[in-house]
Amino acid sequence: MKFFEDIRVGDIDVLGRVTFTADDIKTFAQRFDPQPFHVDEEAAARSHFGALCASGWHTAAASMRLLADNRRRQAEAARARGAPLPHHGPALGFRDLKWLKPVYAGDTIDYSIEVVETRISNSRPGTGLVSTLATGVNQSGERVISFVSVVLVQRRPAQP
Amino acid sequence: MKFFEDIRVGDIDVLGRVTFTADDIKTFAQRFDPQPFHVDEEAAARSHFGALCASGWHTAAASMRLLADNRRRQAEAARARGAPLPHHGPALGFRDLKWLKPVYAGDTIDYSIEVVETRISNSRPGTGLVSTLATGVNQSGERVISFVSVVLVQRRPAQP
Repeated sequence: MKFFEDIRVGDIDVLGRVTFTADDIKTFAQRFDPQPFHVDEEAAARSHFGALCASGWHTAAASMRLLADNRRRQAEAARARGAPLPHHGPALGFRDLKWLKPVYAGDTIDYSIEVVETRISNSRPGTGLVSTLATGVNQSGERVISFVSVVLVQRRPAQP
Repeated sequence: MKFFEDIRVGDIDVLGRVTFTADDIKTFAQRFDPQPFHVDEEAAARSHFGALCASGWHTAAASMRLLADNRRRQAEAARARGAPLPHHGPALGFRDLKWLKPVYAGDTIDYSIEVVETRISNSRPGTGLVSTLATGVNQSGERVISFVSVVLVQRRPAQP
């Protein structure tokens, strides 16, 4: 967790990886996206995807889990060294979410986020707006998902 | 399920409603978004949200479930009357997802989609691109989520 002033365009956080098992894919999809190619191997084989693949909402939500874990680790590390903990607001939304390739059962996706824009909030001068591009890349190096999110980040308090 | 030619800007589909129970909120968040205000009532009470609220990915994924159910019903109705079934592609992504208000435990969200743009694909003349604005509104009439998605929809085959 950094103050706004310590965040630079181009900074990358490697969030970690997720392997999408057939069971995980079907469990998520039965609840939230019960299209045949997400819940049934045989129906998926007959679909234009050709094999069971994850709901796009599943590949997106999986990135949130890694992001939350990453933030918690960073907060714990800051606490451990007695560093001040800047406030990072929850995401207000996303733009340009793209499902670029299917995520098939057995695929492993590496997620990372890259800072693409930083600016000071017009309406809240004590706060910065940090835009990050989140991407997921499969084991063949193909980008499967990307989206841009904007988070409010506390500015470093002025030194007395 | 309609052919591209039968879809008009302004068309609205009421998808249905979802009540977000505390159990549902925590089950989703423990898996995908384990931030304190999504998994623990007491921590949520101390947060800026003031009470347990759903992960934004949960409120988004819930809309997908209603959309999938809606499409299946429309497809079954078309089959029942022997009507041709136009192909609707999977969503390629979305833009401008906004979490406008928290969704608290016990809130009921009504989801609908409205067609906001239709155009013929430049690269695939047999296909139309339909942009829809999805929105979720809580029991107090407040919009809590919105996003725009684009789907490929088959054009009506030329009559001989």
